[in-house]
Amino acid sequence: MIRVTIWNEFRHEQTEPVKSIYPQGIHEAIAKGIAAEDLEIRCATLDEPEHGLTDELLESTDVLLWWGHIAHKAVSDEVVAKVRARVLRGMGLIVLHSGHYSKIFQAMLGTSCSLRWRQVAEKERLWVVDPSHPIVKGIPQTFTLEHEEMYGEPFGIPDDGKIVFMSWFQGGDVFRSGVTFQRGSGKIFYFQPGHETFPTYYDVNVLKVIGNAIRWAVPADTGFAWDCPRCEPVEPIPPAGE
Amino acid sequence: MIRVTIWNEFRHEQTEPVKSIYPQGIHEAIAKGIAAEDLEIRCATLDEPEHGLTDELLESTDVLLWWGHIAHKAVSDEVVAKVRARVLRGMGLIVLHSGHYSKIFQAMLGTSCSLRWRQVAEKERLWVVDPSHPIVKGIPQTFTLEHEEMYGEPFGIPDDGKIVFMSWFQGGDVFRSGVTFQRGSGKIFYFQPGHETFPTYYDVNVLKVIGNAIRWAVPADTGFAWDCPRCEPVEPIPPAGE
Amino acid sequence: MIRVTIWNEFRHEQTEPVKSIYPQGIHEAIAKGIAAEDLEIRCATLDEPEHGLTDELLESTDVLLWWGHIAHKAVSDEVVAKVRARVLRGMGLIVLHSGHYSKIFQAMLGTSCSLRWRQVAEKERLWVVDPSHPIVKGIPQTFTLEHEEMYGEPFGIPDDGKIVFMSWFQGGDVFRSGVTFQRGSGKIFYFQPGHETFPTYYDVNVLKVIGNAIRWAVPADTGFAWDCPRCEPVEPIPPAGE
Amino acid sequence: MIRVTIWNEFRHEQTEPVKSIYPQGIHEAIAKGIAAEDLEIRCATLDEPEHGLTDELLESTDVLLWWGHIAHKAVSDEVVAKVRARVLRGMGLIVLHSGHYSKIFQAMLGTSCSLRWRQVAEKERLWVVDPSHPIVKGIPQTFTLEHEEMYGEPFGIPDDGKIVFMSWFQGGDVFRSGVTFQRGSGKIFYFQPGHETFPTYYDVNVLKVIGNAIRWAVPADTGFAWDCPRCEPVEPIPPAGE
Repeated sequence: MIRVTIWNEFRHEQTEPVKSIYPQGIHEAIAKGIAAEDLEIRCATLDEPEHGLTDELLESTDVLLWWGHIAHKAVSDEVVAKVRARVLRGMGLIVLHSGHYSKIFQAMLGTSCSLRWRQVAEKERLWVVDPSHPIVKGIPQTFTLEHEEMYGEPFGIPDDGKIVFMSWFQGGDVFRSGVTFQRGSGKIFYFQPGHETFPTYYDVNVLKVIGNAIRWAVPADTGFAWDCPRCEPVEPIPPAGE
Repeated sequence: MIRVTIWNEFRHEQTEPVKSIYPQGIHEAIAKGIAAEDLEIRCATLDEPEHGLTDELLESTDVLLWWGHIAHKAVSDEVVAKVRARVLRGMGLIVLHSGHYSKIFQAMLGTSCSLRWRQVAEKERLWVVDPSHPIVKGIPQTFTLEHEEMYGEPFGIPDDGKIVFMSWFQGGDVFRSGVTFQRGSGKIFYFQPGHETFPTYYDVNVLKVIGNAIRWAVPADTGFAWDCPRCEPVEPIPPAGE
Repeated sequence: MIRVTIWNEFRHEQTEPVKSIYPQGIHEAIAKGIAAEDLEIRCATLDEPEHGLTDELLESTDVLLWWGHIAHKAVSDEVVAKVRARVLRGMGLIVLHSGHYSKIFQAMLGTSCSLRWRQVAEKERLWVVDPSHPIVKGIPQTFTLEHEEMYGEPFGIPDDGKIVFMSWFQGGDVFRSGVTFQRGSGKIFYFQPGHETFPTYYDVNVLKVIGNAIRWAVPADTGFAWDCPRCEPVEPIPPAGE
Repeated sequence: MIRVTIWNEFRHEQTEPVKSIYPQGIHEAIAKGIAAEDLEIRCATLDEPEHGLTDELLESTDVLLWWGHIAHKAVSDEVVAKVRARVLRGMGLIVLHSGHYSKIFQAMLGTSCSLRWRQVAEKERLWVVDPSHPIVKGIPQTFTLEHEEMYGEPFGIPDDGKIVFMSWFQGGDVFRSGVTFQRGSGKIFYFQPGHETFPTYYDVNVLKVIGNAIRWAVPADTGFAWDCPRCEPVEPIPPAGE
């Protein structure tokens, strides 16, 4: 059983037009859309104590999803530090859409995570770049979202981003829309679709990608601490002066 | 003229035995050791106001060197954020020895930057892994430091670290001792030798590596901001509903 | 059931001292050492017709192991081309020891795959570099082989080699001794231990690494061809001249 | 002075419509377009003896450009092997357009180098992905070619391809249209524009990119052989049995 936690800022959904699209919140739409027998899904949101991300929850989470947008700064640095430490020890992290500018994504990658953008409800077309990747299992070579926010290159991420999807936008832009990273023992997947004013998280392909990514990001249970231990020589060192 | 700033914690040098080895500080030893006609070298230290890293100095710095050890936590988060932003816009960053655990190195890479260590004055042998890299120009295929602190794998860095040097330690360990990264427009080089109780920064090969790294890390003057601009379509978008 | 084919040059084993160490050949020693319920293991050797690598065998192989040394040139270019094409479509490839200089490894990577070497029966110590990698499951942080051939840096491989193991040699050298690559849909693992005059393929850790690597390299069954199809526009192109 | 050799298949230019666009051949158009004081430019074509690529020419070439299309198979394996060996020792290689399917590009990368394609004279829009890269110096953030052949993802290249340009095509496709690699001591740049029936090699941006790439690909003169030398221990090995 994979223990999934979906974290959502859950602010846009308080008012229209987002309220009508995601009445229970983006997190609940995703939770329902990816529901499966091998997934135990919990949700957490910004305005809960500790943003809902208690130590207990983080320790018992295999894969964390993150959706945020207008309230990135409201996320406490302490929680970000905890999530980062947990990812380095193995927890998978799936960052969605505007989460590119979240504190946690920037803290994991070190770069700006910046991009160019425009919201004119244009068509996005996604392309599978690595057909052998487990994240694209069951996904067609290309699929479209009729209305999405444009995110365009240059995307401020490190060079070890393994490209799984690239996107074409009607207005003339391109973007690395699905990219994986490893940081410490943790696997990270960034997936670009998901603007709050469109029903993207009801799209069958988007949901399948998220579900695949969860199974891909499950940590090996290594228990490795990534700390700085002092240690003894394992081979004999000649006496000083030799 | 390349504008170099050498930043040093400058705490160990207040007392013996480090005081005798580096009486003017590690920064001054490096400054003297790499002095050359194409380099304009300034120094800055922890206990100066703003740690000596004013906005004016950072903006006029092409390449920043960083040595820190016992006082990583004393470096203000505000200064770290400024240095990180400057690197993303192009400033080169050369992180030395125990600087692997500095706030700035962790902030740039996102990972733990952890490693295994031991200080028993053993011999270190460095190997050139990429003989074509500008950082190894004039450096022999292998060279030794008679006494160094051991830093051993696993080293908690991202996978895009381009390996320039790998090291062998008498006590049985190995380490990626010279590694480059690009973050935003900035080039980063981590170089492991340099424990404060040894005269490492008087070694001719170590100094040559640092000098080469400075020339390699000089930024292209792009002025690119790595921010998130809203932008207009560059190709015509069909009217809604089509 | 994972279908494994162990390919061996099987020339050294015709004479002493290798004959006494591996009387049925290196391939049979490995086959016995990694035997498990989820593995269906077949062997093939150089002097069989088509080197034992018929189209049928290749098509029904999930993971191919490769050991060669003195007869790399005797492997036909046609067979190499077939194996390469099969790897690109997804077959896993595990290249052992002196196989670094095989035609197939060079054909997959494009580089020289060269290294420095010495055979004086020195001790090798391997270190786990990525404790979260499935290939190191059950392997201690470090383990030794009392007598191995030294392979030393620089190792002529591309920069996307993901380092799983690094080695320390008594005589002063270091080496990236366990490295993974992806080429097309195929996963590749190079593992350095295995000189023919030592009983390396009876070592419990070496066998466990090979077994882990087989499970890691199993292909996703994508059927993707990696060919160059002509294709139609998927978005409307304005009439010429617009 | 950088010694540049432009290699061209020079077959399409024998007949219309290509003859009228490139009456002296694609190679001469490029040579004229990139002419500069720091470049010494020579040309070589398929139908010359040894395809014009004598040992003398290769040894005295710093950067080789390669354009081929309908006659990839007519290039001798011996010449390909020589070019590959020269690249590994440091010669820069710039592969243009349909050269993605040349023997030399496939030999350097090991992968299929396959892609999806269509020739309907649609518009291509290129985007700069790394604004700090020397190859994009003086190039606007985006520029267009009114008529190009579409090359689309998935592009069968290894994961260490550093992306410099990505392209958008009117018909709905995307492509990594400018990508760098290092193989041995040699730098490689693949640049996608350049279909023979369009005047692409008269475009000011295309020419500037090629010129920048030449300066970027100039080899460090290391003389490193990337061969397999036997070598002696550099650290003392305890007597056998210890």
